[in-house]
Amino acid sequence: MIGKKKWIIPDGFLQPKSTGDQISHEAVCVLNLEDTDAEIKLTFYFEDREPMTDFVSTCGAKRTHHIRLDKLTDKQGQEVPRGIPYAIEVDSNVPVVVQHSRLDTSQEALALFTTMAYSG
Amino acid sequence: MIGKKKWIIPDGFLQPKSTGDQISHEAVCVLNLEDTDAEIKLTFYFEDREPMTDFVSTCGAKRTHHIRLDKLTDKQGQEVPRGIPYAIEVDSNVPVVVQHSRLDTSQEALALFTTMAYSG
Amino acid sequence: MIGKKKWIIPDGFLQPKSTGDQISHEAVCVLNLEDTDAEIKLTFYFEDREPMTDFVSTCGAKRTHHIRLDKLTDKQGQEVPRGIPYAIEVDSNVPVVVQHSRLDTSQEALALFTTMAYSG
Amino acid sequence: MIGKKKWIIPDGFLQPKSTGDQISHEAVCVLNLEDTDAEIKLTFYFEDREPMTDFVSTCGAKRTHHIRLDKLTDKQGQEVPRGIPYAIEVDSNVPVVVQHSRLDTSQEALALFTTMAYSG
Repeated sequence: MIGKKKWIIPDGFLQPKSTGDQISHEAVCVLNLEDTDAEIKLTFYFEDREPMTDFVSTCGAKRTHHIRLDKLTDKQGQEVPRGIPYAIEVDSNVPVVVQHSRLDTSQEALALFTTMAYSG
Repeated sequence: MIGKKKWIIPDGFLQPKSTGDQISHEAVCVLNLEDTDAEIKLTFYFEDREPMTDFVSTCGAKRTHHIRLDKLTDKQGQEVPRGIPYAIEVDSNVPVVVQHSRLDTSQEALALFTTMAYSG
Repeated sequence: MIGKKKWIIPDGFLQPKSTGDQISHEAVCVLNLEDTDAEIKLTFYFEDREPMTDFVSTCGAKRTHHIRLDKLTDKQGQEVPRGIPYAIEVDSNVPVVVQHSRLDTSQEALALFTTMAYSG
Repeated sequence: MIGKKKWIIPDGFLQPKSTGDQISHEAVCVLNLEDTDAEIKLTFYFEDREPMTDFVSTCGAKRTHHIRLDKLTDKQGQEVPRGIPYAIEVDSNVPVVVQHSRLDTSQEALALFTTMAYSG
């Protein structure tokens, strides 16, 4: 079994501005090497308000899913807030591997960052 | 219990120059999944002088805090020095997860970097 | 013995566009500190199709190899697909250390990202 | 005791081109939290030649040292080669923490990347 069921990403931020062809965004990139689909729950933590807990996604068996956080909506249709700091807890029902990346095109050209998430 | 009480970031640098809308800065991004607030102590190490030890911050229970290092002051009102290399030790009284990021707008457009901090 | 035999990279993407002198690409950077050559097998996982399993490379004893994914072909001469998300599993017959980097020149100037791969 | 005595960085590259005010470079950033100075040995591995083994540096007790690889010379006065891929093994006589960063100004604006080094 490769991977972990819980992953933590402290530095989340959806840049509201974009220039050029590419939209600023973040992605939670999941790889599921198991034989069953992964049910993934995303919890968003903030600096000054209660967490948002109703975001879910899936990643098929032997598949990857690069979950676009700018396109994600929860069960009530709410989006991830733009322009404010957050942190992400990723919980999966089977072991997966999680990497977090940001594309920022707010200020000419594009900037990228990435890191493997923390798995305890 | 998720996280660790001590985190290390060897590559710190506050870029003194900025262009465009966004200010060059670094952030120590903390997530506290515990039920009690985290009291956070930051120690800055340098190449040629004694460490600065009197920086503190907090991160609420079930909250994140993206601590802006360009805005942080110690108990004597001193800022983190600009334009020289430093390293950071982050100590919390409860387990937290720590990621370090830099935004550099010194030379047209913006550059980003990030990494999960080291927790031993 | 330093390193691991299996490494995971969830966020892979070959940017099809480039500007300026440098071609957008990704590299799987391997260091082999053993006394024997490393035989390396790369498996690519996708969001909506079966994995591609027939990519191989080598890294000599006491050598590094920065495997360019835009130049890699499998045993049937197939390239890694451009412009779609993938994830990478790296398997070596001897312990190695693996880091993954991307260079993106799609939108003026260049952007870089890197992270140590995940080794379980 | 915080840190490790051996750290590995598979993706090294000294970009020979620079634009604007800032020189393209890499740094091996060390933090030494011990009470004694750290004697640091850097070994560079290549794709097609024997390793270079005679690079040394130091990091004082309770100090950081951001070792600039473009300024480093070995005991024979040789520099780290420019424009070719390498990997780095960092060995210290006391436990330290190591992060690796690159600044690339080859193609308008600047790009940054960083990752915590691998410590086994």
